[in-house]
Amino acid sequence: MASQETFKEHSVAEFFKKNKQMLGFSGKIRSLTTIVHEYVTNSFDACEEAGILPEIEMEMKETGKDRYLLKVKDNGPGIPKKHLGKALGMMLAGTKFHRYIQQRGQQGIGAAGCTMYSLLTTGKPVYAESGNGKEIIKCNISVDFKTNKPVLTNIIEEPSDFRGLVVEAEFGDVKFEKSNYGVIEYLRRSALVNPHAKIRFTDPSGEAIVFPRSTEEIPPKPVEVQPHPLGITAHDLLDLSKAESEYSRLSSFLQARFSRVSLAKVNELKDMLPEINFNKNPKNLSWEECEMLVQKFKDIKWISPSADGIIPIGKDLIEKSFVNVLNPEIVVVSERKPKIYKGGIPFVVEAGIAYGGGIASAGKKGEVMRFANRAPLLFDAGGCAITETVKSVDWKRYNLKNFDEEPIVVLVNISSVHIPYVTAGKQAIAGIEEVSDEIKNAVMEASRKVQVYISGKRKKKEAETKRKVIRRYVNQLSSDLAELAETDDEEKLKEKLSEMVENRYT
Amino acid sequence: MASQETFKEHSVAEFFKKNKQMLGFSGKIRSLTTIVHEYVTNSFDACEEAGILPEIEMEMKETGKDRYLLKVKDNGPGIPKKHLGKALGMMLAGTKFHRYIQQRGQQGIGAAGCTMYSLLTTGKPVYAESGNGKEIIKCNISVDFKTNKPVLTNIIEEPSDFRGLVVEAEFGDVKFEKSNYGVIEYLRRSALVNPHAKIRFTDPSGEAIVFPRSTEEIPPKPVEVQPHPLGITAHDLLDLSKAESEYSRLSSFLQARFSRVSLAKVNELKDMLPEINFNKNPKNLSWEECEMLVQKFKDIKWISPSADGIIPIGKDLIEKSFVNVLNPEIVVVSERKPKIYKGGIPFVVEAGIAYGGGIASAGKKGEVMRFANRAPLLFDAGGCAITETVKSVDWKRYNLKNFDEEPIVVLVNISSVHIPYVTAGKQAIAGIEEVSDEIKNAVMEASRKVQVYISGKRKKKEAETKRKVIRRYVNQLSSDLAELAETDDEEKLKEKLSEMVENRYT
Repeated sequence: MASQETFKEHSVAEFFKKNKQMLGFSGKIRSLTTIVHEYVTNSFDACEEAGILPEIEMEMKETGKDRYLLKVKDNGPGIPKKHLGKALGMMLAGTKFHRYIQQRGQQGIGAAGCTMYSLLTTGKPVYAESGNGKEIIKCNISVDFKTNKPVLTNIIEEPSDFRGLVVEAEFGDVKFEKSNYGVIEYLRRSALVNPHAKIRFTDPSGEAIVFPRSTEEIPPKPVEVQPHPLGITAHDLLDLSKAESEYSRLSSFLQARFSRVSLAKVNELKDMLPEINFNKNPKNLSWEECEMLVQKFKDIKWISPSADGIIPIGKDLIEKSFVNVLNPEIVVVSERKPKIYKGGIPFVVEAGIAYGGGIASAGKKGEVMRFANRAPLLFDAGGCAITETVKSVDWKRYNLKNFDEEPIVVLVNISSVHIPYVTAGKQAIAGIEEVSDEIKNAVMEASRKVQVYISGKRKKKEAETKRKVIRRYVNQLSSDLAELAETDDEEKLKEKLSEMVENRYT
Repeated sequence: MASQETFKEHSVAEFFKKNKQMLGFSGKIRSLTTIVHEYVTNSFDACEEAGILPEIEMEMKETGKDRYLLKVKDNGPGIPKKHLGKALGMMLAGTKFHRYIQQRGQQGIGAAGCTMYSLLTTGKPVYAESGNGKEIIKCNISVDFKTNKPVLTNIIEEPSDFRGLVVEAEFGDVKFEKSNYGVIEYLRRSALVNPHAKIRFTDPSGEAIVFPRSTEEIPPKPVEVQPHPLGITAHDLLDLSKAESEYSRLSSFLQARFSRVSLAKVNELKDMLPEINFNKNPKNLSWEECEMLVQKFKDIKWISPSADGIIPIGKDLIEKSFVNVLNPEIVVVSERKPKIYKGGIPFVVEAGIAYGGGIASAGKKGEVMRFANRAPLLFDAGGCAITETVKSVDWKRYNLKNFDEEPIVVLVNISSVHIPYVTAGKQAIAGIEEVSDEIKNAVMEASRKVQVYISGKRKKKEAETKRKVIRRYVNQLSSDLAELAETDDEEKLKEKLSEMVENRYT
């Protein structure tokens, strides 16, 4: 290992400055989509928590070669002065990181990453205006990379009835293009699963595209949930117990801090673990005791985790979106119960399959549409558990050919209070066993329904073919039978035979 | 955006604790390979810098279900007391992060990540012994997640002639398995491209496997390089100029701090940019001046970046490894010049292709072996620029069928002072344009050589077939000709004709 004198410590801002590809800043088109993604998801999250129907206006202007000025304005609650700098100019700072609450952003990196990219590529800070309906604060925000601290300049505070957030920033080494990985495709997919939002985007040519609001229903406000005992690790338990300040007895701590832990369950645990004193202060739990508890958690029959904190897209909306966008022959959606992965974190997988019809006529084949907490994932498909799982399904079992040869679109959305992303750039889901398994089960459930439809269709087609073949013989047969039976009621025989064929083969 | 009162800041240790999948800790088998990878690459780096032939001893013992004790001992220079805690118990700390020097580790995360994983899964700190040949320090090391600071306990210091580092740690939620993604496969590939190292691994069953040293040649010591003006950004230039303390004139600063900048080149720049005073203190450079300079850098004809700082595997070694391991019919290796990507960072891509022979008889098809700075990349193949690029090559152009159907193994190694990894887990290369392009060029160069061989082989086969067909007619023809020519020297004719055929079709 290293022995040099030049041992140094680095801030997380320096780390991501040197490894900006880990935040999604690689490639000109992708970098621009990353920026739009970060601002839009932040606005969605803020509006959702404040119970506001989001309205986002975006304007992009070309200011030079591979250089654009982006203005984003939302109607959210704005950001209070004391948090504004940190929200836009400090990494790993925010409201989301430490809570078990479903939001699109979850790391406290995104918007500060955009400020970083603006500084790196144009040397310019980001300009922000934040209003709460009474007063407005306007300022420039940059990041001090050495310390990962925000730097605010030109601060103006004044009364104003504006409510919302405006961010204006200039970026270099980016490119606007109407491609499958571009800003407009990102917004299109975003609008698809967020029909309560209105988004207006003016592209660099001055052309405006509006994704209108198609429902006035505000999605449920995300609520903070507690970890489920299944999936919790000894370390998590020890951490939570050390931090406990309200409950002084282990038994009440367990009931208060974990989902689905009732007095009855605590009594079950007591019977299983007579060596643990359930009246002790949770602060005094040892690692060994935590390990024993976690071990026994696995032997108890728990109620499934609550879906309260989780806001999936929903069956109706997925079906409606599929029909609107793809007009397929068949749409199936599997709705599943919440599952949990390591850390006791609940998540829900939704899988929808659209097949044939408009997909076939558009020449689309084997497409996977990925979402996480209703935010589209456009990049890093190759390294994403969703793509990997969908491709690993043995589609032949479902009366289909190879996935890539069928007119099929598979949509998968994962909703959770903490999505296990591969990178801080949040574009691919990590192949964690519990998550991959659940994606597979959801996709297979939907596939079975498609199979039933397709095999029904095939049976119908086969019956039709048989019917046609046999009908050809009816004429011959009825005249032959008439002769054999020495009757001249050939027409009647024909009629009877036809009836039999129709009844048998439809 | 967020408006809550619960705005918090988080340490990078907390971030990676919650997102341990980003460090490669997802899945039991993968997590164990990640651990071995981090310790082995650190030992390699330390030995290389100290000019020592590495000798690594590893022992793994099963201590419970999915729980193993790992002991790693190297013969490196050890870590001085003042750095030991940070090296093993603090993230983003180290000697590598800030320097332009080729090493396997580059982030200062790896070993501290292993300490984190030990704490998370067994609650136990890591035990370390570090000796410099005169004294030894022994201690337990853990991480304070809230502050990302190392915590050292049970410190013992005493005289000792031991030189090297010993790390002993217990990990849970890991699994030892002899699979393609397991520890032994990792070590096998590591040994393949590091023949100067001796590795001894004792697996949990007590069975020892030794990867012997096959060369006594110590690889060149990595040297620190300077950024190349091509690929530098205005922000990099501004950063470097603000940090300058030795040179007080822009012209000397440029010559001293960048690779390939001579006085002649500075004079060219002066002619192009009369508006910039090249005698000014670099500390006073403005963003605009940096942008102008970077713009003009692109118009100057520079000497390619130096390969000094870069230590590739080398053609001979790749060929030898291929022959030893795969015994193929043909081996080709493309050696290429250093290229640079954004930030002025030089890198070298090596591509080797092995085809047929032992690969065919082993039933292997379309395999990609990925390396970065001579460390094997086993995971995340789907999201790696190497795999993506190799698969995107139109192999039919090279007289081959689909990649997945041919008995072919493609090896790609990227060497650089800073590898653009997709994640901090360092298992996939990001698809940065310059890097992807160079991988493609290297693979295509090797492919062309394979093509020449294959088409040569096919031509030879075709000629052989023709020769055989024609030879069949020689007998008939010589007797017919003898008759026509009214001679009885049939044997002589046959001889002559055979000779013609042999000359024509070989």
